[in-house]
Amino acid sequence: MPPERRLVVEFSIVTVGTQGTSLSEYVARACEAVKNSGVNYQLTPMCTIFEAGSLDQAFEVIRSAHEAVLEAGAKRVLTSIKIDDRADKGRTMEDKVKAVENKLSKQDHQI
Amino acid sequence: MPPERRLVVEFSIVTVGTQGTSLSEYVARACEAVKNSGVNYQLTPMCTIFEAGSLDQAFEVIRSAHEAVLEAGAKRVLTSIKIDDRADKGRTMEDKVKAVENKLSKQDHQI
Amino acid sequence: MPPERRLVVEFSIVTVGTQGTSLSEYVARACEAVKNSGVNYQLTPMCTIFEAGSLDQAFEVIRSAHEAVLEAGAKRVLTSIKIDDRADKGRTMEDKVKAVENKLSKQDHQI
Amino acid sequence: MPPERRLVVEFSIVTVGTQGTSLSEYVARACEAVKNSGVNYQLTPMCTIFEAGSLDQAFEVIRSAHEAVLEAGAKRVLTSIKIDDRADKGRTMEDKVKAVENKLSKQDHQI
Repeated sequence: MPPERRLVVEFSIVTVGTQGTSLSEYVARACEAVKNSGVNYQLTPMCTIFEAGSLDQAFEVIRSAHEAVLEAGAKRVLTSIKIDDRADKGRTMEDKVKAVENKLSKQDHQI
Repeated sequence: MPPERRLVVEFSIVTVGTQGTSLSEYVARACEAVKNSGVNYQLTPMCTIFEAGSLDQAFEVIRSAHEAVLEAGAKRVLTSIKIDDRADKGRTMEDKVKAVENKLSKQDHQI
Repeated sequence: MPPERRLVVEFSIVTVGTQGTSLSEYVARACEAVKNSGVNYQLTPMCTIFEAGSLDQAFEVIRSAHEAVLEAGAKRVLTSIKIDDRADKGRTMEDKVKAVENKLSKQDHQI
Repeated sequence: MPPERRLVVEFSIVTVGTQGTSLSEYVARACEAVKNSGVNYQLTPMCTIFEAGSLDQAFEVIRSAHEAVLEAGAKRVLTSIKIDDRADKGRTMEDKVKAVENKLSKQDHQI
């Protein structure tokens, strides 16, 4: 059996022309959509990151977030997405951070 | 009748771990997929930009490009996407550039 | 006295043509550079996010990370950056996440 | 003598909270700043792309564009940047597009 495919996906949504400089109302709507989709996700100060089992699922989650922002009244929406598709290994969000942290602590010891 | 919805979409694909520093072989495969999808597109030095009539169509075009790069042998693929969805007006790629150029030439005359 | 200016900056670095599909060795070098710069930062599964007091400082931190990756032997480096510069209020990384989480919990109560 | 270093840089600037869904006024200011910097540049429907001789020059051009948008009255500015630094070869914007187009036309002939 092939390893489960796992994509790690980052996205952020900006509205143009909405009142005020705060976007948190819209980001919360997008985040709510991600939460409702049931995927494992993480909210960061600049983006939302989640795991998807396929490209289709990734797009489905982003579509729901994008549409939630339009439904909240935004007239123009800019959605940025980054998809990390590692066909050779199914890596989780946690795996990715740990792989870096392990190397960081080794560098510390070498100093 | 509502105005035709038109999204302008930018994307770029990077392969990780493929031999050599050139990506053009893979970018050409992605570009070929975009071309075959029939959308109006433009190749730039940093990304491919195209017009889509819906979010679904946008994702369909990117999926075909992303999968073409995996089929070409890449083991890890990073796909970056930016979607400009202007629900209030159906703007083309050409409209967007002209709107800026018109303002640029006015600024020139003011100097 | 004007409020302290605080930019929140996200970046990620990809190497092209390095052996294997893992980037963690290079990301660790970039992260080490950010750490040494003394800014408040956060490592995520897709990017590194930090706070800067000025555009100059933001660029200085990214330069050190970008150059650390080149020094580690990468022949081609793609660095993606997103700068959130809120001239009206000095927001921290923590403020940004809390603003969304507060709205998320309100939406939960409304359901 | 080593080959001249040449980075290809893409950026786009979005204002948050400015009136209306058009950004072209602000993009024109950013573009004007790039033009005044004297670098070779190209305006696309989604971003501005330019060539820089060093990371320092790249940041200098983007700073001038970012600050021009703040000076035009934007209270919150999101600037996205992608830097392609090919330390092994000094490639121009034109080289990059031609490398892909050459491969595209070969694929056409193979069909």
